Order: sequence, then structure tokens, then C-alpha cells
Amino acid sequence: MKETAKFESSSGLSRQKIETALKALLALRTLVLAVGNAQNDGEVGTVPEIGVSPFIWRNDGLYIYTSRLSQHVRDLIELGEAGCLLCADEADSQNIWVRCRLKFTVKAVEVSRYDPIFDDLCSEFTTAHGPTMGLIRNFTDFHMFRLVPVDGVLVLGFAKAFRVSGPAFDIVAHLSEA
Amino acid sequence: MKETAKFESSSGLSRQKIETALKALLALRTLVLAVGNAQNDGEVGTVPEIGVSPFIWRNDGLYIYTSRLSQHVRDLIELGEAGCLLCADEADSQNIWVRCRLKFTVKAVEVSRYDPIFDDLCSEFTTAHGPTMGLIRNFTDFHMFRLVPVDGVLVLGFAKAFRVSGPAFDIVAHLSEA
Repeated sequence: MKETAKFESSSGLSRQKIETALKALLALRTLVLAVGNAQNDGEVGTVPEIGVSPFIWRNDGLYIYTSRLSQHVRDLIELGEAGCLLCADEADSQNIWVRCRLKFTVKAVEVSRYDPIFDDLCSEFTTAHGPTMGLIRNFTDFHMFRLVPVDGVLVLGFAKAFRVSGPAFDIVAHLSEA
Repeated sequence: MKETAKFESSSGLSRQKIETALKALLALRTLVLAVGNAQNDGEVGTVPEIGVSPFIWRNDGLYIYTSRLSQHVRDLIELGEAGCLLCADEADSQNIWVRCRLKFTVKAVEVSRYDPIFDDLCSEFTTAHGPTMGLIRNFTDFHMFRLVPVDGVLVLGFAKAFRVSGPAFDIVAHLSEA
């Protein structure tokens, strides 16, 4: 029998409940990306760039396929890291002040279209997100990225926020603030 | 009779259709904020901070009421500007590759709780977002901000992106990329 973790007793939510809510967020279809605004001098500008992308989730990270015509994608190529957000629809939010969400930092690694896994990833995108992938698959301004989660925060309600860590979003601690 | 604007003929969407879609986004209840990661040395870190907040929309900007216990709020106080995203629910998106959305940069101005308009704003929050406001209104870790839109991009579909400008999100141009 598993012992009750400290984050379970302090939050009043069982590990199973938390993991079910986490999986529901990972079953969303799109993520929000916030990327530093890369400057020519190697510095980062004050106001980040934002993008919204369909994604697929694998054990080793979240994958997006997106065009460098968008500034945030050029910045992602330049900087190699970003902030990510998965957020439940407003219509599914019981209390709008605490939309269930998972935010986390990622390292971004480009997957070349000549990489042996590229075809598999494209097929998964088609299965998950429909025939648009067939149209954009050969557009060379599009890039495939693996986003590898580093650490983050899972918000499930008032006083129900948790620190998560690593690509599997292991629950590390209950946070008293979020 | 109004002449057809260039952005109407090139996008195939009438001004009225575009403005209706814009208003639907402004009728959302929450916004996503991406804020530069303020460092002690005055620089900005690579990975932005992200937050999700209920908002109300007035002629002079969008208002949020949010706690400085969150890192992105402390960064917003420090930097005074941010990126914003209003994004239609996934369930309302016909094609998940182009969720209707409005992203824009903002200047953030704090509204003191001793400002004569503070009470009005709190009442509007209660009307728009329910009784939670009554609970958090006197929490002094919460700050009221006016977010004044500078410029942005409205995405309504493939090849249907528009540059917008100012607090009223005036439609400026049809973009060939987004």
C-alpha cells in the first residue's frame, strides 16, 4: 500500500486525482508558447512573443510543427528554450479565477525533416489534428520541435497548485502560493 | 457608403465580419499574460513567465486583478509591459491549427486601491466574474492593473491575419504571414 505523500495531505487531493487532472490537460490539442524576444545583440527584449500550436505528447516531450514566418518561432530557434501553457477551455472551468492549467519551461530541440522519426511524427499529427498536416507537411518554412519539459506548476484550484518536474511532470510538492 | 478597405479585398473578409470576430475575443473572460523574466541586474532572462487572469474590458484598456505572489506579477510590476493573448476555446475552434486569437503588446499601469475608480472596477469584476472578487478584494497581495494595448495581431484563419493597433484594436492591415 502506498503511503500518502505530503502533497496529498496538505492539498486534500489524492495523487490519483492530481494525475487524472494532469492527464486531462495533456489531452488538450494546443499549447501556448511564450518565447523571449531575441535581440540582435544577444540580449532578450522586455516583451515576449506568444504563439499557439497544436501538439502531440510523447514520453520524451511535446512536439509542435510550426512556421518560422512567425516571430516567436524564429526566437525559439535562436534561444532554444521557452515557457509553455496548457489551459483548460473557459467553458470547462468551474471557477474562472482558477482555470485548470499546467505551465512549464521547456528546452526546444529541432527535429530535422530528414530525421527517421519525422514521418512518424507527421502521421501522428494527422491522426491527432486532421488533414491540415498533409497540406503543410512539405512547407519548408515549417519546423518540427521537441519541447522537453524542465519544471513547472500545475494549478487545479485555490490553494491547489503543485510543483512538477521533468518530462513526465512528476508531482514534487504542494505550493502554498501560485 | 464606406469604401472597401484594402484589408477587406485582400483577405476576403468584410470589416464587419472581422470586427464581430474581434468583439467575440474581447468577450472572453480570461487572458494569458507573457511577461519578461526580470533579473536582478536589470536584464531580462530567456524564458518568460506566464499567467492566466480574468479581465474586464473598458475603452482605455483591459483590467486584471492579480496577486504578486505569482512571479509573473512581480515581473509585470518591475517591467511595466507584457504580451497578451485572448484565445477562443478549443471546443469553439473549427480548425485547431488556427484557433481564433488576438495577441498584442501592452503597457501595464497599476491602479492603486485608493484610486477613486478602484471600487467601480471591483464591482465590474464581481458582475463579470462572480463572488470570488468579494473574497479577494481586500487581499493586499493583489494588484489592479490597466493593460493598455499597443499593437497586435488578430488571427481568424489561414491567410486571415490582421495587424491591429491601439487600445481600440483598429484594423490596420491584412498580413500575408502570421
